[in-house]
Amino acid sequence: MTSSLEEIRAEVLKRVNPNESERKRVLSLAKKLTEKVREAAKEKGVEAEIRVEGSVAKNTWLRDCPEIDVFMQLPTTTPKEAFGTVCLEIAKKATEGYKQIERFAEHPYLEAIVDNVWVNIVPCYRVKRGEWISATDRTPFHTDYVKPLLDERMGEEVRLLKRFMKGVGVYGAEIKIGGFSGYLCELLVLNYGSFVEVLRAAGNWKERIVIDYEGHYERKEDTKKIFEEPLVMVDPVDKGRNVAAAVRKEKLNEFIAASRTFLEAPDLKFFYPPETKALDATELVNKINARGATIVFVRFEGVTAVPDVLWGQLYRSQRALRKMIQQHDFTVLRDDVWSNEKNLNIFIFEVENRLLPNMKRHLGPPLRKMLECENFLRKHLGADSTVSGPRVDEGRWVVDVKRNHTDIVNLLKEKLGDGGRSVGVAELVSKTVAESMEVLVNAETLKLYSAYPDFAKFLTEYLEGKPRWLT
Amino acid sequence: MTSSLEEIRAEVLKRVNPNESERKRVLSLAKKLTEKVREAAKEKGVEAEIRVEGSVAKNTWLRDCPEIDVFMQLPTTTPKEAFGTVCLEIAKKATEGYKQIERFAEHPYLEAIVDNVWVNIVPCYRVKRGEWISATDRTPFHTDYVKPLLDERMGEEVRLLKRFMKGVGVYGAEIKIGGFSGYLCELLVLNYGSFVEVLRAAGNWKERIVIDYEGHYERKEDTKKIFEEPLVMVDPVDKGRNVAAAVRKEKLNEFIAASRTFLEAPDLKFFYPPETKALDATELVNKINARGATIVFVRFEGVTAVPDVLWGQLYRSQRALRKMIQQHDFTVLRDDVWSNEKNLNIFIFEVENRLLPNMKRHLGPPLRKMLECENFLRKHLGADSTVSGPRVDEGRWVVDVKRNHTDIVNLLKEKLGDGGRSVGVAELVSKTVAESMEVLVNAETLKLYSAYPDFAKFLTEYLEGKPRWLT
Repeated sequence: MTSSLEEIRAEVLKRVNPNESERKRVLSLAKKLTEKVREAAKEKGVEAEIRVEGSVAKNTWLRDCPEIDVFMQLPTTTPKEAFGTVCLEIAKKATEGYKQIERFAEHPYLEAIVDNVWVNIVPCYRVKRGEWISATDRTPFHTDYVKPLLDERMGEEVRLLKRFMKGVGVYGAEIKIGGFSGYLCELLVLNYGSFVEVLRAAGNWKERIVIDYEGHYERKEDTKKIFEEPLVMVDPVDKGRNVAAAVRKEKLNEFIAASRTFLEAPDLKFFYPPETKALDATELVNKINARGATIVFVRFEGVTAVPDVLWGQLYRSQRALRKMIQQHDFTVLRDDVWSNEKNLNIFIFEVENRLLPNMKRHLGPPLRKMLECENFLRKHLGADSTVSGPRVDEGRWVVDVKRNHTDIVNLLKEKLGDGGRSVGVAELVSKTVAESMEVLVNAETLKLYSAYPDFAKFLTEYLEGKPRWLT
Repeated sequence: MTSSLEEIRAEVLKRVNPNESERKRVLSLAKKLTEKVREAAKEKGVEAEIRVEGSVAKNTWLRDCPEIDVFMQLPTTTPKEAFGTVCLEIAKKATEGYKQIERFAEHPYLEAIVDNVWVNIVPCYRVKRGEWISATDRTPFHTDYVKPLLDERMGEEVRLLKRFMKGVGVYGAEIKIGGFSGYLCELLVLNYGSFVEVLRAAGNWKERIVIDYEGHYERKEDTKKIFEEPLVMVDPVDKGRNVAAAVRKEKLNEFIAASRTFLEAPDLKFFYPPETKALDATELVNKINARGATIVFVRFEGVTAVPDVLWGQLYRSQRALRKMIQQHDFTVLRDDVWSNEKNLNIFIFEVENRLLPNMKRHLGPPLRKMLECENFLRKHLGADSTVSGPRVDEGRWVVDVKRNHTDIVNLLKEKLGDGGRSVGVAELVSKTVAESMEVLVNAETLKLYSAYPDFAKFLTEYLEGKPRWLT
């Protein structure tokens, strides 16, 4: 049963628009927090301007996940050492008695849960536009830029777009996701006029896309040369910054594909995908066996790092390992990585065959390179490493040599035994890998599968191998 | 222990040069046979000129394998039907009482063994140069061309070259070998001056080689355009014909490599390679297992055809099967074919793995091709053939689909069950394949290996995988 676009819009809006009382509650909480932070700063003798930023300031938050960003603008004279630490103290004082989590991006900041609402208290410098010191200094300018342009109706369009992106899994500029930030959603809606027009445009994106809403550059070609990311949204408040810099190509493609598919057959599941039901153990084993490939799991214990650092390290290590495996002639069908961001990380490599022959063809020089041919023969003729050959094949010498690694499990165990730094495993990952790594094949993953429901869901989706909105 | 080039030359010449009495015996036998054929022709009322051609006429035969070619030149008015049959009768009459074998190239001819010497009695037309009717008509012109140019010394050089080519396995223009004819050896020696100079030149051949000894063409570039074979020797008696047309690229490369290696370290084994000693059964099985790959043997019974036709069909079928196997995603490491030219033929395909996963990645259209994407999704989403996906990967839709053939043995059995015409198996091969094919894997080949010593030698050399002259 497909519903009309209008029906879907209405239904989603009903769910994402906060009602009057919810709105009042969030806004008054924001106001109260601002006061508390202001007082705490005063007590500390810190001359700071306190403002609400983000979706609450711009009236674009989603009803089911309000998040209050309180920013402390400090004078540029504040010493770098004090910038983070003092503000952290102020933030802690202001949210005394509530659950607090220290976070760290470029500088430390505080996350707190106040009356069931997530609150971030973040320091930045009060700078003139363009004279950025810290990465967070632009935020107040973003708020000031967007707020007057978004009326109530446009705010709704932003909410629709955000919810859609959450539903199809491309929302969030954090490293784990590599998708679209809230500010980017707002600019997209401003640029195209509405949620549906953003999707319609995205569905037709084919080349690299450059949007320069404020017209900072005279010619699109210049912009294309300055930025190199797949999607470019020139920041209206900073012509040197790409608001979409975090968007990875794969997330961009998923958004394009989802936009198109949604417009063809609008459905609520794009906004609210059904929860994945993990396969039971027997189904899992059957499904893995039915593929006939080999799925290798490398599990290791938690890495102490904030999520952005953790995921950066995980992705980098995953790429390095994939490359290493390929260089040893295994055919990698797919690979993925999972983490509960606490005590468990798992790399997945699915290869065509667990084993390779004991020998591999080693290509020598073409016959016309006479000196190289001589050296090649001297090296391989009768050598211990030679299984058969050398012989002339298609105009060049070739020899079959012993293969060092014929089993991907042993390959991974060997290369990762010391943490795998030499094959490109990232530093923090390397440490815990060396201490706690275990390599599991196919059904051997069952013990993890049963112990970690989130991993079970993840692996179920991996085996399904398609976006949840595609049914 | 390496010997000097001179020592090797002298030793080989001692073995290939017929001594005076052997020479006399062969020449007087040739004369006697000429007389006999002449008489038999006369009796039949056929007006034919009878001549000795080939290595005996040109004094370039090898002592250990003299072969007398007697040619019957018939008037061009002889009807096509009579050309073969009448001559065959004459030849039979002339060699009455000796072992006789009917052969067939373009026309039938007779092979006989007279006093332990192989004799060919071959018909041709007596034509003016250039007005060729039958393929054999050029032969007397070749004899007449070469004979006055080759003195005793040059004859020796030809013998050295022929023996070398035999030793390294590139002698013979028949399809099975695809190598160098005796006439081509003679022209090479004429062109370069001596055996060693031929090898020296060949060792330096890098591009396509064109030799126009008589200077039929003004510019080498023209000659390169007219002929397309890897080695071109313009026939001195027919500018439109390449004497080296039969030389396959791989044989040319083997000759180049052998020439070079011999000149670096002259050795008698290039002329007289040691006999291959077949591995015993245990060694064979160990060697096959040590490779860790899968060797598949397709055996089938004899094909009724002359060797050139048989080998043409075998090679064509081998290529077609290799391609078919590759198209089904198996990685072919090497392949080969063996025949005893009687009751047994065997294809060999060595692949990385006997089994492939049950699924294969099927690439769909890139996202920018919107209509194709829609069709792709319609076809694969939820289809029986879909194992997982579709999903977006590197800017295009992909889906994992069920693989039809996961076992190379079953693949071959299925594709060859009806003879394999549809996958390109040649006609005569196809017939016996359909009736008698058997597919064996690795050690299963032992029963053939033990029953056919020549196959055992062949397989031993295959596993060794290098030219016999390379040690």
